[in-house]
Amino acid sequence: MQFHHHGYVSGDPRVLPAEGTGVDRPVELPDEIDVLIVGSGPAGMLLAAQMSQFPGVTTRIIEKRDGRLVLGQADGIQPRSVETFQAFGFAERIIAEAYNIGWMNFWGPDPERPENIVRTARTADYAYDICEFPHLIVNQARVLDYFAEAAADGPGRILPDYGVEFTGLTVHDAGEHPVEVRVRHVAGPREGEERTIRAKYVVGCDGARSGVRDAIGRTHVGGISAHAWGVMDVLVNTDFPDWRTKCAINSEAGNILHIPREGGYLSRMYIDLGEVADDDNHEVRKTPIEAIIAKANAILHPYAIDVKEVAWHSVYEVGHRITDGFDDVDAGSTAAPRVFLTGDACHTHSAKAGQGMNVSMQDGFNIGWKLGAVLTGRSPESLLSTYGAERRPVAQQLIDFDREWSTLMARKPEEISDPQELATYYLATAEFPSGFMTQYTASMITGTDAHQGLATGFPLGKRFKSAEVVRVADGNVVHLGHHAKADGRWRVYAFGDESGAGVDAWAAAAEPLFARFTPTAADVDAVFDVKAVYRQAAEDLDVTCAPALFQPKTGPLGLTDWEKVYASGPSKWTAADVFADRGLSADGVVIVVRPDQYVAAILPLTAVDELAGFLEGAFLPAS
Amino acid sequence: MQFHHHGYVSGDPRVLPAEGTGVDRPVELPDEIDVLIVGSGPAGMLLAAQMSQFPGVTTRIIEKRDGRLVLGQADGIQPRSVETFQAFGFAERIIAEAYNIGWMNFWGPDPERPENIVRTARTADYAYDICEFPHLIVNQARVLDYFAEAAADGPGRILPDYGVEFTGLTVHDAGEHPVEVRVRHVAGPREGEERTIRAKYVVGCDGARSGVRDAIGRTHVGGISAHAWGVMDVLVNTDFPDWRTKCAINSEAGNILHIPREGGYLSRMYIDLGEVADDDNHEVRKTPIEAIIAKANAILHPYAIDVKEVAWHSVYEVGHRITDGFDDVDAGSTAAPRVFLTGDACHTHSAKAGQGMNVSMQDGFNIGWKLGAVLTGRSPESLLSTYGAERRPVAQQLIDFDREWSTLMARKPEEISDPQELATYYLATAEFPSGFMTQYTASMITGTDAHQGLATGFPLGKRFKSAEVVRVADGNVVHLGHHAKADGRWRVYAFGDESGAGVDAWAAAAEPLFARFTPTAADVDAVFDVKAVYRQAAEDLDVTCAPALFQPKTGPLGLTDWEKVYASGPSKWTAADVFADRGLSADGVVIVVRPDQYVAAILPLTAVDELAGFLEGAFLPAS
Repeated sequence: MQFHHHGYVSGDPRVLPAEGTGVDRPVELPDEIDVLIVGSGPAGMLLAAQMSQFPGVTTRIIEKRDGRLVLGQADGIQPRSVETFQAFGFAERIIAEAYNIGWMNFWGPDPERPENIVRTARTADYAYDICEFPHLIVNQARVLDYFAEAAADGPGRILPDYGVEFTGLTVHDAGEHPVEVRVRHVAGPREGEERTIRAKYVVGCDGARSGVRDAIGRTHVGGISAHAWGVMDVLVNTDFPDWRTKCAINSEAGNILHIPREGGYLSRMYIDLGEVADDDNHEVRKTPIEAIIAKANAILHPYAIDVKEVAWHSVYEVGHRITDGFDDVDAGSTAAPRVFLTGDACHTHSAKAGQGMNVSMQDGFNIGWKLGAVLTGRSPESLLSTYGAERRPVAQQLIDFDREWSTLMARKPEEISDPQELATYYLATAEFPSGFMTQYTASMITGTDAHQGLATGFPLGKRFKSAEVVRVADGNVVHLGHHAKADGRWRVYAFGDESGAGVDAWAAAAEPLFARFTPTAADVDAVFDVKAVYRQAAEDLDVTCAPALFQPKTGPLGLTDWEKVYASGPSKWTAADVFADRGLSADGVVIVVRPDQYVAAILPLTAVDELAGFLEGAFLPAS
Repeated sequence: MQFHHHGYVSGDPRVLPAEGTGVDRPVELPDEIDVLIVGSGPAGMLLAAQMSQFPGVTTRIIEKRDGRLVLGQADGIQPRSVETFQAFGFAERIIAEAYNIGWMNFWGPDPERPENIVRTARTADYAYDICEFPHLIVNQARVLDYFAEAAADGPGRILPDYGVEFTGLTVHDAGEHPVEVRVRHVAGPREGEERTIRAKYVVGCDGARSGVRDAIGRTHVGGISAHAWGVMDVLVNTDFPDWRTKCAINSEAGNILHIPREGGYLSRMYIDLGEVADDDNHEVRKTPIEAIIAKANAILHPYAIDVKEVAWHSVYEVGHRITDGFDDVDAGSTAAPRVFLTGDACHTHSAKAGQGMNVSMQDGFNIGWKLGAVLTGRSPESLLSTYGAERRPVAQQLIDFDREWSTLMARKPEEISDPQELATYYLATAEFPSGFMTQYTASMITGTDAHQGLATGFPLGKRFKSAEVVRVADGNVVHLGHHAKADGRWRVYAFGDESGAGVDAWAAAAEPLFARFTPTAADVDAVFDVKAVYRQAAEDLDVTCAPALFQPKTGPLGLTDWEKVYASGPSKWTAADVFADRGLSADGVVIVVRPDQYVAAILPLTAVDELAGFLEGAFLPAS
């Protein structure tokens, strides 16, 4: 964590100095704003936290609820989401608070006495095999709390405007603020009042029944299956030994997906309520909690739960829907979009794969920095078209995966030939539910894969997988990727050649290139945070001899930044060798990483012209 | 982290439900209180956080300053202190914020050109070799912020009474509240007002010029040396390559102890100002900052610092003083003490070994739970006499260590025969400055060492060194010691014999014993948190079959606690084997640990009578 950069600060360094619109931010929703976020769920709150890093942009987030979410439905947190939390500064706190999924157990009918369940398989969860972050379970309300804190503590000081309902919008052809948005105050002193505000961009993060989606004429395509599930968060006493372990339970009486929750006592159960008759007309949704508990006990036999408190429960029929467009621009048009949809507004599915909140957050992460880049003049408006192009395929993958997983979870015992099958499937597909399968294809912000061979462990278009390295200035082992905060900046890593001379030559050649796209009034690393990772051992390097590009003097005091020069392990504190572990070429390599942590370009140290070409496509020259 | 125990909670689980005096806590200082803490430094604030866990006790903390400390002088954080922060719930946050000392470098005169310094030795810092926590540098003000938060969020909801100055006290012979304390409001609406309040106990945490110490007639014994040091926290640009590494610099121009600080830019320098003339009369303390900087540059030659901002600076002469008694009871008297001294009020020394704040916090940790235990009727008043008996030898060790270290740091180059010598000394003595050398001797709360052979890795009287184990309920690898929060409870660990039958038999025999010292109205684990660690692999154990002692049903809902049954690794996630790593007997062993984490008793599983004898000495039967 870097601070004292603008002079000594005494208080919490997580609270950044207010800047721009964060200074004297008006309490009332202004008439004209740059970005309006509709809805304060996971996508919207992450987006608010991201926009708070662009204090030159006026961003507001409206929410019809009159305050903080008290009880959230989502709770599954992929490792990719924890990685994202790290970038927003709260991973260590939420990890301490959450349930860590270490294992998944599988239960099926006892072959001897099929009315009883027995444990049939046990598999380690995938998280730590895939990255350094765990797979967590924690209430969505707490995730939102942390993002709200990040939004409030960022330079933009963004707070949600609670009690404000979106009622409609019109996109005009011209004007500085072409989106006319109609809202209604539904709580607070202005309750009942209707207003019109003008925005440059609107992001609909308003859930499965999105009003923004309706307003731009997009439709949610798909349907619901004839299979119903009850879900409950309960505090119980029980003789079921796996109450604190994630389980898939398949019994003659039906299925349960059992997920322990944070805090050591609570668990969530998804309880199979079976097929729904064609003429049911959603009557199944009225199933009382007593019936759901009774069903759970039937499935758990010979074990039983004695429910002491029901924190939340619901009944739903599994649905799979995707929206026919993620922005307001029709196919074939080259216009830049003005309105975007994220999260449940564009993809809905079952809850059981624990994916919804996670994919929604990545929607928000994807659109956030792009809006910031366009509104601060760093990148052309065309950047915004990449949002839908990138996120729609991810939503489709999600729907497909969830359909397969929820079907597998709903099978009858006689449909299962091998009790290990579900465990095998769970592990084999782990990269997807971990959140690491997303791979963006070539675009103005994803370059050519011609040089992938120089860095086989950093696949182009996938998220940059962090690695432990040694910080030369202090010899500490740190995670290279964890230095990349969600501050809207791009990261460029120059990994060294054998002697290190190639990195130094690259730095000299590339420095004016980065300067071309960085405002002269800003810090030299305001747009590109460029770091070197040398092959030499840290103790053989002198940080003060590194090229100036890696020792910028920034901030009002012009202080040297000591945290841009790294060496590879292994060292006393880590076995990691990033060059070997990520398959990096002996000739060195440059990795360009987007603000949302995806690998955008892979280039030889000698290919500064090619780097220039990439940057010219993604950025506007600074004025 | 365990919560939802009293039913589902939606908000921050670190904020515990208010209880007792924390419900409707009066804003004004009451006329009668149980515990008055004087001073809100590290010892006082830790003590407040600890007392907040005893909401049945009325505790107030007065501080003459009118608000939060803005700029603290201490900054060195031993691993033992980080371990303590873990127990108070904020280790992960302060680690993320602090500077981690990975290495220490040594500089001396270049033999070729002795006017220049060169690096002469480099040693890894000791922290991770000694325990799982790092050795940190972070501003004292932030440490106090975190303890203040823990005090405010505990059930007692303790907030400091700022702007209240201690002016004197009288200990009366009788009465419920025998200590009459005189205070003056020195800030706020009641400024100038003088008051008398009555307390059962008073703890002086009021620093080197302690008024409480004077009031009870104790004196600070010792003196100051004729050697002066300048100290400054500065933001600079420099060509000195070790600006971000801890260094001991010995040059012809004098000595510097250089300590990087949190945030990536700031460093602290202790700069040798040389011998002070006999007739100096503290004139040296007026040395201007420009002279200190000039001296630093002379020592650093051929390197130089260009100071951009001085956050803080001071000049001091090294002093070593210890107070002649740590409470108000005279030697030879058997009376129970009513007034205690902690921290700088009883020991002062140089800052350079980075010990002061750490030892002070352990003073507070030591007295806190004892006051809680006596005031809640768990333990006899005689427990309070152990405070001075235990802490005074620790203070003496500290003084001795610091005198040796500060003398070594002040030598001239010609006094140093081996440039590696200081590095060797630094590593060889590492256990002391890490905070792990403290070992309490036999008393009513430290039993016999007759059974030390059953657990060679848990030395009697030293702090319980945590180890990774597997939590049976969920298969997660966790640190056994990290479950022990600073909640005033004792921990009892039953480490298993070969079959586990010995643990189960012990549990049956010991359960009524623990019940004897636990109020019937309280949870069964309110005083003793008893855990089992079996030798068997977690997957071979069924947590629901463990003895009831390890599965208590507690809280208003009578929910089963799943986090008291552990197994030893190694497992998929850890190589640790607590039985091998801590030298535990194949016959099993019981380890009794105090609320401040020190090993109080080591007993065979079969020695329930001996356990009874120990508990009878330390506890009162519950009414």
